Amino acid sequence: MALLKDLAASRVVIEGVEPLIDGGRFAVKRMENEPLTVTADIFSDGHEIIAAALVTHGGEVEGLETPFVFIGNDRWGATVRFATPGPYRYSIIAWRDVFGTWASDTKKKRDAGVDIALELREGEAILEQAAESGRGSREDAKALKALRARVEKFRKLKDEAALYAVFTEAETIELLRRCGVRANLSRYPVQVPVWVDREAAGFSAWYELMPRSQSGDPKRHGTFDDVIARLPDIREMGFDVLYFPPIHPIGKSNRKGKNNSVTAKEGEPGSPYAIGSHEGGHKDIHPELGSFADFQRLVTRAADHGLELALDFAIQCSPDHPWIKQHKGWFDWRPDGSIKYAENPPKKYQDIVNVDFYGPDAIPSLWVELRDIVLFWLDKGVRIFRVDNPHTKPFPFWEWMIAEVRAVDPGVIFLAEAFTRPKLMKRLAKVGYNQSYSYFTWRNLKWELREYLTELTKEECAEYMRPNFFVNTPDINPLFLHTSGRPGFRIRAALAATLAGNYGVYSGFELCEYEPLVTGKEEYKDSEKYEIRAFDWKREGHIRDDLALLNRLRQSEPALRDFRNLEFYQFWNDNVLYYGKRTADLSSFILVMVTLDPHQPQGGHFEVPLWEFGLPDNGTVKVEDLVNDRQFVWSGKVQHWWFEPAELPYAIFRLSV
Amino acid sequence: MALLKDLAASRVVIEGVEPLIDGGRFAVKRMENEPLTVTADIFSDGHEIIAAALVTHGGEVEGLETPFVFIGNDRWGATVRFATPGPYRYSIIAWRDVFGTWASDTKKKRDAGVDIALELREGEAILEQAAESGRGSREDAKALKALRARVEKFRKLKDEAALYAVFTEAETIELLRRCGVRANLSRYPVQVPVWVDREAAGFSAWYELMPRSQSGDPKRHGTFDDVIARLPDIREMGFDVLYFPPIHPIGKSNRKGKNNSVTAKEGEPGSPYAIGSHEGGHKDIHPELGSFADFQRLVTRAADHGLELALDFAIQCSPDHPWIKQHKGWFDWRPDGSIKYAENPPKKYQDIVNVDFYGPDAIPSLWVELRDIVLFWLDKGVRIFRVDNPHTKPFPFWEWMIAEVRAVDPGVIFLAEAFTRPKLMKRLAKVGYNQSYSYFTWRNLKWELREYLTELTKEECAEYMRPNFFVNTPDINPLFLHTSGRPGFRIRAALAATLAGNYGVYSGFELCEYEPLVTGKEEYKDSEKYEIRAFDWKREGHIRDDLALLNRLRQSEPALRDFRNLEFYQFWNDNVLYYGKRTADLSSFILVMVTLDPHQPQGGHFEVPLWEFGLPDNGTVKVEDLVNDRQFVWSGKVQHWWFEPAELPYAIFRLSV
Repeated sequence: MALLKDLAASRVVIEGVEPLIDGGRFAVKRMENEPLTVTADIFSDGHEIIAAALVTHGGEVEGLETPFVFIGNDRWGATVRFATPGPYRYSIIAWRDVFGTWASDTKKKRDAGVDIALELREGEAILEQAAESGRGSREDAKALKALRARVEKFRKLKDEAALYAVFTEAETIELLRRCGVRANLSRYPVQVPVWVDREAAGFSAWYELMPRSQSGDPKRHGTFDDVIARLPDIREMGFDVLYFPPIHPIGKSNRKGKNNSVTAKEGEPGSPYAIGSHEGGHKDIHPELGSFADFQRLVTRAADHGLELALDFAIQCSPDHPWIKQHKGWFDWRPDGSIKYAENPPKKYQDIVNVDFYGPDAIPSLWVELRDIVLFWLDKGVRIFRVDNPHTKPFPFWEWMIAEVRAVDPGVIFLAEAFTRPKLMKRLAKVGYNQSYSYFTWRNLKWELREYLTELTKEECAEYMRPNFFVNTPDINPLFLHTSGRPGFRIRAALAATLAGNYGVYSGFELCEYEPLVTGKEEYKDSEKYEIRAFDWKREGHIRDDLALLNRLRQSEPALRDFRNLEFYQFWNDNVLYYGKRTADLSSFILVMVTLDPHQPQGGHFEVPLWEFGLPDNGTVKVEDLVNDRQFVWSGKVQHWWFEPAELPYAIFRLSV
Repeated sequence: MALLKDLAASRVVIEGVEPLIDGGRFAVKRMENEPLTVTADIFSDGHEIIAAALVTHGGEVEGLETPFVFIGNDRWGATVRFATPGPYRYSIIAWRDVFGTWASDTKKKRDAGVDIALELREGEAILEQAAESGRGSREDAKALKALRARVEKFRKLKDEAALYAVFTEAETIELLRRCGVRANLSRYPVQVPVWVDREAAGFSAWYELMPRSQSGDPKRHGTFDDVIARLPDIREMGFDVLYFPPIHPIGKSNRKGKNNSVTAKEGEPGSPYAIGSHEGGHKDIHPELGSFADFQRLVTRAADHGLELALDFAIQCSPDHPWIKQHKGWFDWRPDGSIKYAENPPKKYQDIVNVDFYGPDAIPSLWVELRDIVLFWLDKGVRIFRVDNPHTKPFPFWEWMIAEVRAVDPGVIFLAEAFTRPKLMKRLAKVGYNQSYSYFTWRNLKWELREYLTELTKEECAEYMRPNFFVNTPDINPLFLHTSGRPGFRIRAALAATLAGNYGVYSGFELCEYEPLVTGKEEYKDSEKYEIRAFDWKREGHIRDDLALLNRLRQSEPALRDFRNLEFYQFWNDNVLYYGKRTADLSSFILVMVTLDPHQPQGGHFEVPLWEFGLPDNGTVKVEDLVNDRQFVWSGKVQHWWFEPAELPYAIFRLSV
């Protein structure tokens, strides 16, 4: 009879619960104080009125109940927010509302002139059961006392109208809401996990640089102190995360030379991604950059400038990495005693070997050591990690490792540098990555930007994946920028900064650097990956002012802190992307237009979303042009705009009524 | 470390599995031998080649593996069929294909002229591991032996070409497929339930009649023998299920009279839905219909005519039902000692009381008794039950009861008579109902038929819900038929019979009966629910020939046995619905056109789906007009058709090349 009893306990159906990632296998993600609206189909047999509550656990509350509100077509919804980062979970309870059903039926009968003497006796029983239920006791013993008082009062009354009035009083209704018997209380069987992040997981502006190129002299290896000297400059542009490629000792064997040549000349610094030498591995600093004391000073000074440091976590090893001798069981050895190089046959990457996550001694010791590397740098004050090529490492490793680190500090943020197939990128986000690189870098046309952004902001992945729109990286010098000139850099900056919550710039972008190693290919010429460079950071033609403006608006306009609030609007020109973001209360309502054509003037008519303010098509809104600091009004739904890309390829407006 | 070990075991990701109803909470449904195609996203980290298998259990096989085939974008698919009704389940395993990866990489290197001596030694190790794995042993000890022989052969060879050739031989590839080590074997954690029905669950033509109206004389109560006399008539129309409203003793208290009047006159028979009197309850036969021996004879004779009997399972009781005295704890008593009548305040249904499924003594004794009623009639040869108003009874009861009955006979079919909100109807199908009444009765326009049928055949519910398209019922005399005349009846019959797998007709429909009790309302005048009627079953104006034709085509054309194969095509007239059904091999390719306008001629151009045959737009197909028994050809994609509704409001064609 066990099955029957179990089944019978679920009289009220709770199904179609959203959000729910893979049946609750993975957490829904939110930022602190970001609303989470849970919806579900909730219904029962028959005509009884039902009620339901969202029950949340985590943080400082256990079992907090938020009432569900009926939406329509058996769908219900409830909204909660979580104040601090960490793990939460939600579930749903639903029950038949005995008093509600009684009140509704009795009112109908009374309105129809039917005698309700019997109904009143049934109502009395409902009151009595509530007073005896004890459900209120945990919450409020006073409520139970008040209920008993109601029963006593009821028993002294005689007149039908007076008796009925007891049940229509607000106090009775409130007391029964709190303590009334919940008939056929049913529970959704899944405790749905929710992961709450600090805001930087979903809203951040990254600036990437190579510390060794910060001396201002290509002949002198840059140091952490050189980076410290550049902090005011970076902060002036308004960035809040400062990210370095690996800062560890670089291997000498098979070291790569300038422009990725297979052999380095004497004195060439090698790729920082060939990690490990006799000077140490992942827990060490490349000596030419400075000491741990220098690093600590940098962390502190960066924070003083409002910049948080992000480090690279790249698991591959140079052939000189200490692990190779110390931990043979962490690598995949070939019959001739060599280690498999990283390869994509017939190509080989000779300066790097990969660990074997399922090698003979790898579980758990390799996994533990890798986790400990992250904890080591966390201990040094680093709470953001950009992870190199995570899709070539096992998903279970990331899930385990990220959970372990979060148990120590729920504010640690991992960005997945996976440029791979869409389902792998989504899986990395599911297993715990807080941010993900995206395909933005290769989306230039209006239709493809709309399609991609709609997927990212409206489909299920919006519940767990937060893209970081990098406009370029040391490996990606986008083809669009090879021919776009300065207007193209401004276009891509405006798109990234206003479309996404997280976006990033690799240094040189602000100088409109675009020289490719090979025409039509994405590798930079004289890439900093293989040599030390020096730049004049304020040379003519830079776009520092655009970046500063965009970052300032991102900070001042709450609408731009959200990602999923993106809406596309109509601009009758396929070269102009037009979209808006707004807060729920419309107090921050931003419209953005970007011409996607860096060469020719473009313009056309567009729709002002008057309907979002509840205005008719001939309504009027106040407009602030946030780029040119002008104010005017738009009267009527159809307006016109014009772009001269060499002057200004984007427009940003703030609307109000 | 338990979590790490568990996680690590799932290196290959298996997600996005379809079909999967509520995470595997409910069964996917199929008919015997109907294909089940399972698709899933399957991928792993890195570049290794992976492989996967669908593993099915149930019937006569345990753990049958069907290889998955790569579709694209990390999606894989596999198709299976189940031969006999009953419970099945499927799951998925996936692994890294060590040999496949080796073979692919080694071929690339060899093609690029790279020395593969080391690779050949690794290949030898792969062969050895397979020979030692024992994975083949269960299946085939010979395979392991053959593998060992391969290893020996390999060791005697010297020449690189000869050594490499060992791995490109078909036998090696087949042996490694069967016995090769499955690296990182990962298992999808859900055993997805599949319920397999006999064909009648998804393909059936129902004919409903009131046995007491079959005497041919409204003054004489019909008997089972009168029904036997009508069997040839019914079979002539081609139906295969014969369904009766309740045949149990009818209560006398508060008996309803002619046309649903609140009090019956002396001699009026009452509604058969007021079940139970001093003559018995749900396990008894209304004496005027005959004896159990008569009933058994009817079951047998119906079967002789190719008709299977379906009974009504209506749980409500008349106030005279024996249970009311025998099982007080099965009812909801009011403070004055009365039982709550069925009511929808302020309306009351005084001839019926409902049991209380959660009453003080209801669990388990009421639930068991209700199950035993079904088992009782199953024992009398009834394997199809039409259940009255199941949505007013608890879903857990149905789930439990249907499972219990199926454990006795997996061929029992339950039809849910729930005309209620969409999610409740779907839930009933999920908890086990094999067939469901539908909204078809109220869908008359082209757009609404297309929309509804697309939901039913293409959305998730198609995996578990099988509608039964009744054209009318004793309670539903559709408004469309009040004014449509005979063409309207032919229209609705053609739609129901060709759109749905299951469809049904309530007797009188073939005579174009439509007189309502109240103009604009769906109740029949002089409804058989409250009185005995007599009809001339072959009176002028009947549409018996249409029904016979439609049912004959349903039997002869395999394409019409399927429901989910429905495709709508373009007919440039909003009054003409045009659709097709075809078998996968195109050997049965049926096109149907139905004018939805019973009054005016309609016609227009339409598209011949030449593309389904791979033909160009100017291609030619052979056409059989299955209604008029003519043959012709259509050359070119756009053709024309014309309907005179009074003559023939539908067209059915069979296409071939």
